[in-house]
Amino acid sequence: MMTGASLAVDISKIRGSQETDVVDSVAVEEPLELQLCSSTASHSAAKSISITMRTPGDDVDLALGFLVGEAIISGTEEVFSVDHCGDPDKDTGNRNTIRVELNPGVEVDLERLTRHFYTTSSCGVCGKASIDALRVSGSQVIKGSFSIDRSVLVRIPDDLREQQHVFHKTGGLHAAAAFDLQGEIVVAREDVGRHNAVDKVVGALLRMKRLPAKDLGLMVSGRTSFELVQKALVAGMPLLASVSAPSSLAIGLAREFGMTLVGFLRDGNFNIYAGGQRINRKL
Amino acid sequence: MMTGASLAVDISKIRGSQETDVVDSVAVEEPLELQLCSSTASHSAAKSISITMRTPGDDVDLALGFLVGEAIISGTEEVFSVDHCGDPDKDTGNRNTIRVELNPGVEVDLERLTRHFYTTSSCGVCGKASIDALRVSGSQVIKGSFSIDRSVLVRIPDDLREQQHVFHKTGGLHAAAAFDLQGEIVVAREDVGRHNAVDKVVGALLRMKRLPAKDLGLMVSGRTSFELVQKALVAGMPLLASVSAPSSLAIGLAREFGMTLVGFLRDGNFNIYAGGQRINRKL
Repeated sequence: MMTGASLAVDISKIRGSQETDVVDSVAVEEPLELQLCSSTASHSAAKSISITMRTPGDDVDLALGFLVGEAIISGTEEVFSVDHCGDPDKDTGNRNTIRVELNPGVEVDLERLTRHFYTTSSCGVCGKASIDALRVSGSQVIKGSFSIDRSVLVRIPDDLREQQHVFHKTGGLHAAAAFDLQGEIVVAREDVGRHNAVDKVVGALLRMKRLPAKDLGLMVSGRTSFELVQKALVAGMPLLASVSAPSSLAIGLAREFGMTLVGFLRDGNFNIYAGGQRINRKL
Repeated sequence: MMTGASLAVDISKIRGSQETDVVDSVAVEEPLELQLCSSTASHSAAKSISITMRTPGDDVDLALGFLVGEAIISGTEEVFSVDHCGDPDKDTGNRNTIRVELNPGVEVDLERLTRHFYTTSSCGVCGKASIDALRVSGSQVIKGSFSIDRSVLVRIPDDLREQQHVFHKTGGLHAAAAFDLQGEIVVAREDVGRHNAVDKVVGALLRMKRLPAKDLGLMVSGRTSFELVQKALVAGMPLLASVSAPSSLAIGLAREFGMTLVGFLRDGNFNIYAGGQRINRKL
């Protein structure tokens, strides 16, 4: 991507009674429109299925990861092409539009995208219905023998922070990373939105043919919401850790699907909210 | 609201080599469906216009604030009623559905809700188009004589933190507050989502008949995105401050509409990204 993830702006810094005018770096936020072409859609036009505010860069991964999260694709063999519309180097607008063309025969229920999680339960809209909807959409209980040492897990936040290049410049980006059982970071991504950072990681894993990622954990900056657990679940990841707090629904979803959920992972300490059996506590 | 904003869950706390099983408080996240009835919609059924993951509580304010942000309403005189569907004390599902009935004659362009900000420019989807769309939708350049002393501004983060009751229990909630020129917090709200916390503040201001809030500033925890500046702008607030970094598009939007944008407001220091003339720097 030619578009930078950070931008220089003129600002005034007030430090006590001192004021200085400086050029500072800020995180770039721009809309990205995702268009989908499939044999179930009209041939004449791609259908715009989402628009998200994101930090430019890794847009292909973002698009692919989003489609994985929506259970529209699960492998690269379903994707014919994925490209920006027009020339990203020249065309301001088109670098913010990305088009994914699916292979013939890949069925897509675009209606489901708008209905989403709140139509499957008689109880109306509630957390239980949100969790149930994921079961209906084919998400499965996490299985397998994933087990990680506590000493490995507590190192991940520092390793991720080292890879947050844009955050260091701007202080304004979230980050997500997939890591293996040895604590190696397989892929790390940054974005103004946490969900986008996770989509970018999942999209990269898809391209690396590492989905479902049964042997990888996911680390995120900030808090853990239902949406983030959902994305990790659909990607098949058995463990999700964050430096901050999970929500009630994030915990409920992780417990329902057998995922390990770790919070407040910092300074060698952490809380286990679900699936503690996957963390080897021996020193 | 009977539903609590926090929930007790069993967790394991790992502190170095010590492990303890404790009951901890986590922030509640539940979906809220917003239904709208208007004379331009069918009489027979309310139309579901949004679903958002939020922390239960102040749902009426959340719904009203969301509708202000979408430029669907600008005053209480446009609203006939706003209520949960069913009995919130009894009915799990219905406490997560809120219905707003507009008064006869209030015109609503529901189509606009789905089109949103990306259809007004020939350049395709870009930040410029996002900003232009707000002008088209009627947002106006901020005017008026709002001026706040630096000494007042730097006190706001601590005052807000004192009012974050659920955050203190859970560590998992964002906060937003409206404050006046003397630094008094007029209304403060918490939520798992920053945009929801802001909607709750704006909805409360609507009910207090303080919109447009030309004499109030908005303080938010976390980072400042395009969306948050947009919400403050539509509410007529001349100043938005946060404890962390703004995005490029947040800055662009604030500058375009003459709003004062402050970031990294902590420990008596801050950065001014736009509209510095409203901050009186005399000690």
